[in-house]
Amino acid sequence: MTRLTRKESHARTRESLVETAKRLFLADGYNVTSLEKVAAEAGYSKGAVYSNFATKHELGLAVLDVVHVERAESLSAAILGPDTMAERIEGFARWADENIGDVGWTALEVEFATSTRHLPDIRTELAERRRSLTAVLASLIEIQTAQLGIALPLPADEAALRMLALGIGLGVQRAIDPEMPVTALVDMLRELTVVRAT
Amino acid sequence: MTRLTRKESHARTRESLVETAKRLFLADGYNVTSLEKVAAEAGYSKGAVYSNFATKHELGLAVLDVVHVERAESLSAAILGPDTMAERIEGFARWADENIGDVGWTALEVEFATSTRHLPDIRTELAERRRSLTAVLASLIEIQTAQLGIALPLPADEAALRMLALGIGLGVQRAIDPEMPVTALVDMLRELTVVRAT
Repeated sequence: MTRLTRKESHARTRESLVETAKRLFLADGYNVTSLEKVAAEAGYSKGAVYSNFATKHELGLAVLDVVHVERAESLSAAILGPDTMAERIEGFARWADENIGDVGWTALEVEFATSTRHLPDIRTELAERRRSLTAVLASLIEIQTAQLGIALPLPADEAALRMLALGIGLGVQRAIDPEMPVTALVDMLRELTVVRAT
Repeated sequence: MTRLTRKESHARTRESLVETAKRLFLADGYNVTSLEKVAAEAGYSKGAVYSNFATKHELGLAVLDVVHVERAESLSAAILGPDTMAERIEGFARWADENIGDVGWTALEVEFATSTRHLPDIRTELAERRRSLTAVLASLIEIQTAQLGIALPLPADEAALRMLALGIGLGVQRAIDPEMPVTALVDMLRELTVVRAT
């Protein structure tokens, strides 16, 4: 077995801490999970955590980044597979039903945002992520509409902002009331992507 | 001065506690504000709090109810005054700009929802409030559209659900990123209320 370089070992520790923290944050909540718990569950000392993350909030941000990539990948897989718009909307509807309002995910997002609301640096980081997420969604919408010859009724960045806001708003409510359907979001996508004369 | 009956005195204590709790929850946050602090600031003993509210969450729910009534009243005042739809939309735009993403309000809603997510009774209470809020919005939309002779492009309850979800989703993001505009919500209202042939 090849020995890991110091840098590789550091990266591996970091990855393992983020993975463990993600599991605990999603299952138990952000505020109730201590750094000590994360270190112990991952099999490291508390010092190992602090050599990777200056604060719990830095670890929280790293976890959110991983969660966002995973959810974006599952969304892409759900909608980019099929060829027709109708099938892509079906894929989106299934993804939305499984992900929007997922209690652990929703609670992590809002608990992190509220517990860091008095910290300007973290707020700036979150605001940047919000903007880049909207931009990624907008380009996903642009690529799809170009591929399928669809003329959007509004600019792609506005469509992205609406879809994201509606998704968050449904998610926050659905986390409280699981009977709430996600049809409003699917309907909005359907309305946006009705094929129009270009 | 007439002496208060026991019942009146109890109601007055309760009102004072809710008002003080509202101020503290909105300014400092729900989780960091203790029942002791509320009692002390309102000038009552901790026993007085417990004779009115079995738990902090009961007080939290009572505060949310007051906040919702206040925001609904300011919304009604903003949109029901003027006669034309264009002026009502202007009023709505001003209200939305001042209220959507208000950091204290948004944080209170989501902190309360996340910190009570493992308590079935509170979740049921919140889910009921969500449904009745949507129903109130739907009837507000129905009254307005009837008054102004507007044919909605979708049922009033679906329009209400969309407006509410979009407003919540924008609010959660705007609390993090105050530069985010509320135009998407105003645009949606405008699209819903374009006068169509009935």
